[in-house]
Amino acid sequence: MTAAGRDAELRERARRVIPGGLWGHLNAANLPPGYPQYFARAEGCRLWDVDGREVVDFMCSWGPVVLGHRHPAVEEAARRQAALGDCMNGPAPALVELAERLVGTIPHADWCLLSKNGTDATTACVTIARAGTGRRKVLVARGSYHGAVPWCSPSIAGVTTEDRAHLVFYDYNDIASVEAAAEAVKGDLAAIIVTAFRHDMARALELPDPGFAQALRALCDRESAALILDDVRAGFRLHLGGSWETLGVRPDLAAYSKAIANGHPLAAITGAEWLREAASKVYTTGSFWCGAVPMAAAIATLDELHRIDGPARMRTMGERLRAGLDTGAARHGIAVRQTGPAQMPLMLFEGDEGFRLGNAFCAAALAAGAYFHPRHNMFLSCAHTEADIDRALQAADVGFAAVAKLG
Amino acid sequence: MTAAGRDAELRERARRVIPGGLWGHLNAANLPPGYPQYFARAEGCRLWDVDGREVVDFMCSWGPVVLGHRHPAVEEAARRQAALGDCMNGPAPALVELAERLVGTIPHADWCLLSKNGTDATTACVTIARAGTGRRKVLVARGSYHGAVPWCSPSIAGVTTEDRAHLVFYDYNDIASVEAAAEAVKGDLAAIIVTAFRHDMARALELPDPGFAQALRALCDRESAALILDDVRAGFRLHLGGSWETLGVRPDLAAYSKAIANGHPLAAITGAEWLREAASKVYTTGSFWCGAVPMAAAIATLDELHRIDGPARMRTMGERLRAGLDTGAARHGIAVRQTGPAQMPLMLFEGDEGFRLGNAFCAAALAAGAYFHPRHNMFLSCAHTEADIDRALQAADVGFAAVAKLG
Repeated sequence: MTAAGRDAELRERARRVIPGGLWGHLNAANLPPGYPQYFARAEGCRLWDVDGREVVDFMCSWGPVVLGHRHPAVEEAARRQAALGDCMNGPAPALVELAERLVGTIPHADWCLLSKNGTDATTACVTIARAGTGRRKVLVARGSYHGAVPWCSPSIAGVTTEDRAHLVFYDYNDIASVEAAAEAVKGDLAAIIVTAFRHDMARALELPDPGFAQALRALCDRESAALILDDVRAGFRLHLGGSWETLGVRPDLAAYSKAIANGHPLAAITGAEWLREAASKVYTTGSFWCGAVPMAAAIATLDELHRIDGPARMRTMGERLRAGLDTGAARHGIAVRQTGPAQMPLMLFEGDEGFRLGNAFCAAALAAGAYFHPRHNMFLSCAHTEADIDRALQAADVGFAAVAKLG
Repeated sequence: MTAAGRDAELRERARRVIPGGLWGHLNAANLPPGYPQYFARAEGCRLWDVDGREVVDFMCSWGPVVLGHRHPAVEEAARRQAALGDCMNGPAPALVELAERLVGTIPHADWCLLSKNGTDATTACVTIARAGTGRRKVLVARGSYHGAVPWCSPSIAGVTTEDRAHLVFYDYNDIASVEAAAEAVKGDLAAIIVTAFRHDMARALELPDPGFAQALRALCDRESAALILDDVRAGFRLHLGGSWETLGVRPDLAAYSKAIANGHPLAAITGAEWLREAASKVYTTGSFWCGAVPMAAAIATLDELHRIDGPARMRTMGERLRAGLDTGAARHGIAVRQTGPAQMPLMLFEGDEGFRLGNAFCAAALAAGAYFHPRHNMFLSCAHTEADIDRALQAADVGFAAVAKLG
């Protein structure tokens, strides 16, 4: 499948005025083969591209859309606030309501800050940890994604050595590697930052071992360093109190964004009491950070996620998808490996050099009506029904048939 | 005037769940005395705080609101796009339309990238300049504000020496200091970053000398470095093609945000052809950066600014305000100094140690219905009419009377 008319036209126009056709993770060169780049509209778990093709979506806008596109309660809350005001000389009362909601919902949180990007939140966490400890070193898991600025970007273009001078790397789920890294910077350890689970691009997802999480907590306690949970990608999908609540491990700082307001631009930093003063001294702000519409949308999103137990619903639907994909693959005699939490699944084909099989599967399934991703974890939303999953599994069957033909 | 009932209640609640009561430039401790922190609604150039007090506003949300709050054409464009979709798996056609509009309007721009915060844009400019030149050093004017992350934040809490290792400082409008800084890093100069005019907090504003601007351009040409115009604060208020168009000096990279979408969260980086490849290699992205609603709002905002010649209208109203303030001050026998472009004015009281007179003026004027700022440049919008200015000048008269009483 090649790009259809309108999408191809927009890509060509974009190529002239946007470097690489599009930035970052959406750079035209990174799209799976046959995928549309431009979208005309969205509703629930359905997307329509600019050439009118409808798909059941399993990327959910790379995470933000947790209740489904254009969720009525969220959009109504956004409209009500927009009718009053959005970006004013200071915040609306929605700020206080949202901050109280976050602190009341997330057990480790004694306070919060709001911002716009996940990167704003992770960067603020690191800066607050340094301000609060008076130390410099931050332990980071090799290959983990924490944002798109020089200290953490996956590309080194334009990055100087000094931008990463105080990072020390460990391996996810490898306690010994963390201990070694901490030992190497003894006395200067400000923080350990860790994602909710290991969701590095283009490899199997890996849940945190409970013992690993507990060891990080113990190490931070011993060294008086801050444990930073980067919950930007997983937050509000796995557990409404923070993704490590099920492990019984609470961070000192956490970064949230993506799903917090069902697609409205917002991020949050939550923190423990001992870092409150540091957080008040770090200068972090932006022109739109008091915008009231995303805050009203976040309150409505969190209300709805609580009301329907969103994480449980997404898990149920994710498990249905996973079971169906396993059955489908087996029917075609294809070996697949499914990993990650059911709400954020990934399916890889065994021995799939260069994602040849994954790309073929996705392109065929897309043409048959389901938007999967071959290399990046996918996302369920609360808008996915059993019927949507079953519809997507029919499309997956077309995908498996295409893979089977490749032999 | 002390904080009134509802505002005081919200501040007290916020104090418990937000460090410092509010972050960054809106930290409760930084508010001028007597100022409300929370707002109930906004319309045109009028704001209503949560205690129902109405003011003619001269902060315009610290810049973003350039056409007036809840501008009908902008909000209609935003609603139309929201009814289709906002944050999807990729952009809407509005991305291409906006990118073409920016490249078509801003003479130096051969391409653009979009983001959310002004800080995203300035950081990307610096990173792209480093990627494009293969060099590290960036010349920054002493005291200039370029954002709220460790490399440029006005606070050093949580900042390491390495975060600023490659910055070298010069003085705004002082060519010799720039030449000296460039000489000191010869062969390693990536960029010079400069704000559209000198708008450092708490001091008189200073327009760029044309010779200074031309010297920066010549120096960058000679050294094959990038000239970065930080037009985040002034962009789209002084000139729709970039704030240095009137000086005949075109940058290689420019950062925009604030006024670009009349309060919807958006930022932009524009660049010259020689930096296109570097821009495609730098990894800069965010979960909401393809959000279509702010892009639709930006297109409508730029259309309207062109249609009504927004910069000229704001200049006219800013000049009326300035003339009225001069007259009012003279009537009370008070010496003031007004500086900056008419669209972004600042009034300081002569010999005003600790902003005692400025604070008294602002508090009294606020109570009488005009929201001025004692230390930060103010902002006009296209919603200000002659009647609004005259109404604000009556409030200013109350302010001058309060200052006169202080003696």
